[in-house]
Amino acid sequence: ELLLHLEEIHHADIAEILTELDLEGATYIVKLLDSEKTSEALMELEEGVRERILDNLSPQEIALELEEMDTDDAADIISELSEDRQQQVIAQIVDEEHADNIVELLRYDEDSAGGLMAKELVKVNENWNVTNCMSEMRAQAENVTRVHSIYVVDDKNKLKGRLSLKDLLTAPSKANISDVYIPKVDYVTVHTEGEEVARIMQKYDLEAIPVVDEMNRLVGRITIDDIVDFIKDEAEKDYQMAAGISEDVEADDSIWRLTRARLPWLILALFGGFISVSVLGTFDAAMQNHAALFFFVPLIAAMAGNVGVQSSAIVLQGLANKSLKGSLINRLLKEIVLSLFNGVVLAVILAIGGVFLLGFDLTFGLTIGISLISVIVIASLIGTFVPIILDKQGIDPAMATGPFITTSNDICGILIYFSIAKLILGF
Amino acid sequence: ELLLHLEEIHHADIAEILTELDLEGATYIVKLLDSEKTSEALMELEEGVRERILDNLSPQEIALELEEMDTDDAADIISELSEDRQQQVIAQIVDEEHADNIVELLRYDEDSAGGLMAKELVKVNENWNVTNCMSEMRAQAENVTRVHSIYVVDDKNKLKGRLSLKDLLTAPSKANISDVYIPKVDYVTVHTEGEEVARIMQKYDLEAIPVVDEMNRLVGRITIDDIVDFIKDEAEKDYQMAAGISEDVEADDSIWRLTRARLPWLILALFGGFISVSVLGTFDAAMQNHAALFFFVPLIAAMAGNVGVQSSAIVLQGLANKSLKGSLINRLLKEIVLSLFNGVVLAVILAIGGVFLLGFDLTFGLTIGISLISVIVIASLIGTFVPIILDKQGIDPAMATGPFITTSNDICGILIYFSIAKLILGF
Ligand SMILES: [Mg+2]
Ligand SMILES: [Mg+2]
Ligand SMILES: [Mg+2]
Ligand SMILES: [Mg+2]
Ligand SMILES: [Mg+2]
Ligand SMILES: [Mg+2]
Ligand SMILES: [Mg+2]
Ligand SMILES: [Mg+2]
Ligand SMILES: [Mg+2]
Ligand SMILES: [Mg+2]
Ligand SMILES: [Mg+2]
Ligand SMILES: [Mg+2]
Ligand SMILES: [Mg+2]
Repeated sequence: ELLLHLEEIHHADIAEILTELDLEGATYIVKLLDSEKTSEALMELEEGVRERILDNLSPQEIALELEEMDTDDAADIISELSEDRQQQVIAQIVDEEHADNIVELLRYDEDSAGGLMAKELVKVNENWNVTNCMSEMRAQAENVTRVHSIYVVDDKNKLKGRLSLKDLLTAPSKANISDVYIPKVDYVTVHTEGEEVARIMQKYDLEAIPVVDEMNRLVGRITIDDIVDFIKDEAEKDYQMAAGISEDVEADDSIWRLTRARLPWLILALFGGFISVSVLGTFDAAMQNHAALFFFVPLIAAMAGNVGVQSSAIVLQGLANKSLKGSLINRLLKEIVLSLFNGVVLAVILAIGGVFLLGFDLTFGLTIGISLISVIVIASLIGTFVPIILDKQGIDPAMATGPFITTSNDICGILIYFSIAKLILGF
Repeated sequence: ELLLHLEEIHHADIAEILTELDLEGATYIVKLLDSEKTSEALMELEEGVRERILDNLSPQEIALELEEMDTDDAADIISELSEDRQQQVIAQIVDEEHADNIVELLRYDEDSAGGLMAKELVKVNENWNVTNCMSEMRAQAENVTRVHSIYVVDDKNKLKGRLSLKDLLTAPSKANISDVYIPKVDYVTVHTEGEEVARIMQKYDLEAIPVVDEMNRLVGRITIDDIVDFIKDEAEKDYQMAAGISEDVEADDSIWRLTRARLPWLILALFGGFISVSVLGTFDAAMQNHAALFFFVPLIAAMAGNVGVQSSAIVLQGLANKSLKGSLINRLLKEIVLSLFNGVVLAVILAIGGVFLLGFDLTFGLTIGISLISVIVIASLIGTFVPIILDKQGIDPAMATGPFITTSNDICGILIYFSIAKLILGF
């Protein structure tokens, strides 16, 4: 009766149950249940959980699961196995066309349109008439969960346009497809980057988009559910990157995995810290008469860090959305005006607080105020232009966030602060 | 001929053109083109750009645009107008049912299912037979861009299930709907939060989901394209929140708007900075014999900040995805082990660097090493548990990111550092 109960549950919920169970229990359920259900549940699992379950299955058992999956999901799962096991599993897939399709998909980069697409789609030849198109379509649609659009190709399989199910139903049965199809269709090529695919599908509100190869031949289709997952994943990765976490991790991952994702950034920050120690060391002459300058170091560093992170976050999103317009000079001027304005407001608060609250003299108040303005302007320029420059060099500008920006702004901030203080106070 | 050319362009591209043009040009095009096209282009615009264009249109011209929009989009746009103008515009909408629907949608919170849904959907009564269902459906489908699913309701409009177009086509024409429909359907209520709707639609790969009211009556439908926009917006807001930006802004927004989004966090950080100044001031006795302690302040503060941000980012994503499992005690133990391990590695590097590179004596190396370990452990605990506690209190844990965590960790870090140094070095 457990079996009967589980057969009725949605595969996404079975995935949750598998995650809760221990490895033995989970493996038992995957073997017990029909692979029609378990294959979809396997797809929904966290990579780590799935890996452990698959380790407990034979190549033949894995092949059985893959037979039930759409080609895109099957390819994703196979790509997680070791090369050896990949071979063994593929050899066990009975449906040769399915195996062929999976092998083709394995060739593409996982973040490209080729890596996101499935081979399952419904297509018709422009030279057919509506009647033989209908019967052909019915046969194809059996393997396709949701039809979305019918794609129209020529004899060489080149994408010509699309056809809605509604159009097909209302067309006279002797009409030629070439007379009724819509010759305009959005498409991407196998090499289009995933983020671009997502941008196009979001912009035009598409539920599916056809994928063509270099010769404009129709080779696959991407559906919106996979793009939703992609968008979510990318957003999580960007968020983690900004926090100084370099692998996609979860709170429940192993300590070892979490360390691998976090420690490298911390070591980078530590080396940045060494530099700041040295910088401060060169100004030790100030200790004698202006010891209080050292009390303001964390405040200055924090302001530099915060301003830099704010600026870089806004620019990074602009770069990601391709919404950054206008010349660099304009951006430079705007950033200077903006940071000058913010800087002056903050500097006035700081100077007033320093003089009246903490009892420092006026010159000292002026010194920290002027320093703060300069630090804020420089920090905001670094935050704005480091991502833009990286982007122009073809480097992922998301690298320039979080720890990287805060560390470099700490160092620059302290250097500017003490240089200005030395100029005004003279030590 | 400009007109002819523009008529052929996709509305999302017209939106881009409108953004590029000056206000006069954009207004001219909106008035010139058929509102069938411009209404959809208006929807795609940035809120700021749209606001300015709408300011240049009369209530009647706005009403004409709204007539062409789906109810969800029309309601979103009306809600951006002032109360007075809302009244005027609604009064100008000719289609009374459309106006009614819009007014209904205005009642819901914009981030709830009610605020995300549209009134456009296709529904049939369970007591109908297939034939009159088909004709009724054809009539309804005219106002609905994509059918997705046909929802089945009873005489009281209560949601009973759904029907696929395919099922309907293959059913015998005299069959009753009650015999052929699928009685299981995922749905949400008008009060379900947007994030929960997105989670459900992503989990079950839905392209549309019906929305019911408190009495289980079918009142609307949410489509995946709007959820894609919602997911993107939420991710951008979370990213900005983590960077200390409190309103949804873009690089090209006005300096005033950018300041409003950024300055409050900077002022908060500045006050945090004042506290760190005072904390450092209480340890000024160390200046005499252990001046070098002050050189390490930015390093310690930076490490505390980075560790805190890392921990809070991971916990926040776990909370958002509802994937945080296990007891608080387990999480506490894990976080201590993880941060102790990272802390020891970093402390060893720091101590070695301090002694051999910068030439400090062994006791001093030991002091900064031990301090770093303590600071890292505490910072990671603050980063982990502040969001969890806020969440339990019903406060949005995203508040506890970026500036807030770095500022409090700066203060705690410095306090711990000097307290331990005082204990070991005695000053
Ligand atoms: Mg199975
Ligand atoms: Mg793939
Ligand atoms: Mg869209
Ligand atoms: Mg839209
Ligand atoms: Mg798929
Ligand atoms: Mg990215
Ligand atoms: Mg118009
Ligand atoms: Mg709405
Ligand atoms: Mg999904
Ligand atoms: Mg899926
Ligand atoms: Mg909509
Ligand atoms: Mg949120
Ligand atoms: Mg900092």
